[in-house]
Amino acid sequence: MRGVIMHEPGDVRVEERPDPTIEAPTDAVIRIVAACVCGSDLWPYRGADAPDQQLMGHEYVGIVEEVGDEVRTVAPGDFVVGSFVISDNTCPICTAGYQSRCVNGIFVDGGIGTQAEFARIPHADGTLVATPGQPDDDLIPSLLAASDVLGTGWFAADAAEVGPGKSVAVIGDGAVGLMGVLAAKQMGAETIIAMTRHVDRQNLAREFGATHIVEERGDEGVAKIRELTDGLGVHSAIEAVGSQESMMQAIRSTRPGGHVGYVGVSHDVELPGGELFFGLVHLHGGPAPVRRFLPDLIELIWNREIDPGKVFDQTMSLDDAAAAYSAMDSREAVKVLLRPRSLHLSVQER
Amino acid sequence: MRGVIMHEPGDVRVEERPDPTIEAPTDAVIRIVAACVCGSDLWPYRGADAPDQQLMGHEYVGIVEEVGDEVRTVAPGDFVVGSFVISDNTCPICTAGYQSRCVNGIFVDGGIGTQAEFARIPHADGTLVATPGQPDDDLIPSLLAASDVLGTGWFAADAAEVGPGKSVAVIGDGAVGLMGVLAAKQMGAETIIAMTRHVDRQNLAREFGATHIVEERGDEGVAKIRELTDGLGVHSAIEAVGSQESMMQAIRSTRPGGHVGYVGVSHDVELPGGELFFGLVHLHGGPAPVRRFLPDLIELIWNREIDPGKVFDQTMSLDDAAAAYSAMDSREAVKVLLRPRSLHLSVQER
Repeated sequence: MRGVIMHEPGDVRVEERPDPTIEAPTDAVIRIVAACVCGSDLWPYRGADAPDQQLMGHEYVGIVEEVGDEVRTVAPGDFVVGSFVISDNTCPICTAGYQSRCVNGIFVDGGIGTQAEFARIPHADGTLVATPGQPDDDLIPSLLAASDVLGTGWFAADAAEVGPGKSVAVIGDGAVGLMGVLAAKQMGAETIIAMTRHVDRQNLAREFGATHIVEERGDEGVAKIRELTDGLGVHSAIEAVGSQESMMQAIRSTRPGGHVGYVGVSHDVELPGGELFFGLVHLHGGPAPVRRFLPDLIELIWNREIDPGKVFDQTMSLDDAAAAYSAMDSREAVKVLLRPRSLHLSVQER
Repeated sequence: MRGVIMHEPGDVRVEERPDPTIEAPTDAVIRIVAACVCGSDLWPYRGADAPDQQLMGHEYVGIVEEVGDEVRTVAPGDFVVGSFVISDNTCPICTAGYQSRCVNGIFVDGGIGTQAEFARIPHADGTLVATPGQPDDDLIPSLLAASDVLGTGWFAADAAEVGPGKSVAVIGDGAVGLMGVLAAKQMGAETIIAMTRHVDRQNLAREFGATHIVEERGDEGVAKIRELTDGLGVHSAIEAVGSQESMMQAIRSTRPGGHVGYVGVSHDVELPGGELFFGLVHLHGGPAPVRRFLPDLIELIWNREIDPGKVFDQTMSLDDAAAAYSAMDSREAVKVLLRPRSLHLSVQER
């Protein structure tokens, strides 16, 4: 089969790899219908992490080809959405809702890699969720979004305790930040402030529910947010970048007693204890336990109550993965959907 | 009147200061019945903060002498307990339960100083809570504890979302840590692990409700906690020191999805973003909004359901404040209660 390998920063290739097979009775092998490039894939692409021949891709929807003897909840032919972390969904950490730290957890990145034609998914019952039937083609981008960016933005909003009547600042205008805006809207937030200086992303943010746009960053951005919140700061901040600047902006934008939900993969961040202490905010975040939210998110998408798939502004063939990485790296694209050539159906143009 | 001034690290003196008077219509002047030395007073005492003629003391119980025209909820003659931060208790931050960051907040330390015979308490209605009547003398240490260490330990347990059936690790064996043990017991925790290597503090921790003692620190301490929690870590950690080591011990002892409540005044702490991110814990803490908890804590004490006053193991005259600081600095005393000479009644010996 064909699959994406990152040899070194900036060097993305689509190459032949062995077809995956069932190795354990809890495995499933799925045919990937759509995958995509994640903002977090740009960290190794830009050299912040060492890729070293890494099998890329952790977002995916697909059709089950084959299952092991112990798999009960998905069957060949099912259309499935999976999380970017393999989870058994039965351990005490999973049952508490933290499947992304399952005691048997495996990150799909690296070991599996779903920017490919097929993938072996361990702990299929605990990782995959079948849709109610075969989806219309125009639902595929939204279902794919649920696999990571929607689930992650949703977790960030949940971690930030977004709720009816509250004010929310969203730091980060990538796909996850935009999904955070959508989640905040769904959760009933009254004021949703998207921080972005890119007109196309401002428009998308407004479409997803942003009530205010703040273009300023750093201290000026924080001052602007205070202006919009009676000088107090927001109830909830969603951090979707992972840098020192964005974390501090989130913390400083939040009122005492408020909540920061952070999901940007942390790079070179050191949080100053004294400022955290006197800030009196709540901090919660990390790799999103997407599996917790998948059943509800699939239902919202299936019923066409949300349309997160709008976050994909380009569709390419899996064979063009290098161009997809490049478009996201340069921020020409918000998020690129990849379809294996064999299944390169027409995705609704957006 | 007489009051404690710290001239420089290690130099604590009791000196004459002007008697406080009503300056604003929301003020009260109280006669201090008991005050004490706080673990946080040891930071400037040891030179970690610059005291510079600081008026010391922020824990207090007393009798109202005089009130301004707008004070409604306390009257001359009332016995009152106050928080270590002045709060109006009406601003949006206060009404959300974060009175320690009241928009009109003032730290009692520095500007007021309750290691003294009298104190002017601004925003008396929002800061002070009257007891149901004049307390028996043996209740005074417990009521004084409510003013900070009990309220702070309680907030830490609340921030760590301690609850029935949960496991809790308490890092820090000072008065606040011990109060965290008491709070965890009251909140129904099943496993309460006190981390201390001092036999007298171990005994006090057990008396307050600790089910396990861990003497190890650092990585070994974390390993021990994992052993006691099926390898997962605790649901809740209470951090009551404020150092890098204790914060990391709290974070590393907590399972993914668990909660760290931190109340040790942060000194030279830098939290590594990557470890926080993948740890997936909740972090919340800072200066405790004691005022939120005071009414309930006073009721528990008044009904003799809790006896936090046991945390005071020495009582001295206010005039002996220097000896009190020294006893706490050397850890001979867990916590020293100070009584102005004029009110140096017999406190039940413990």
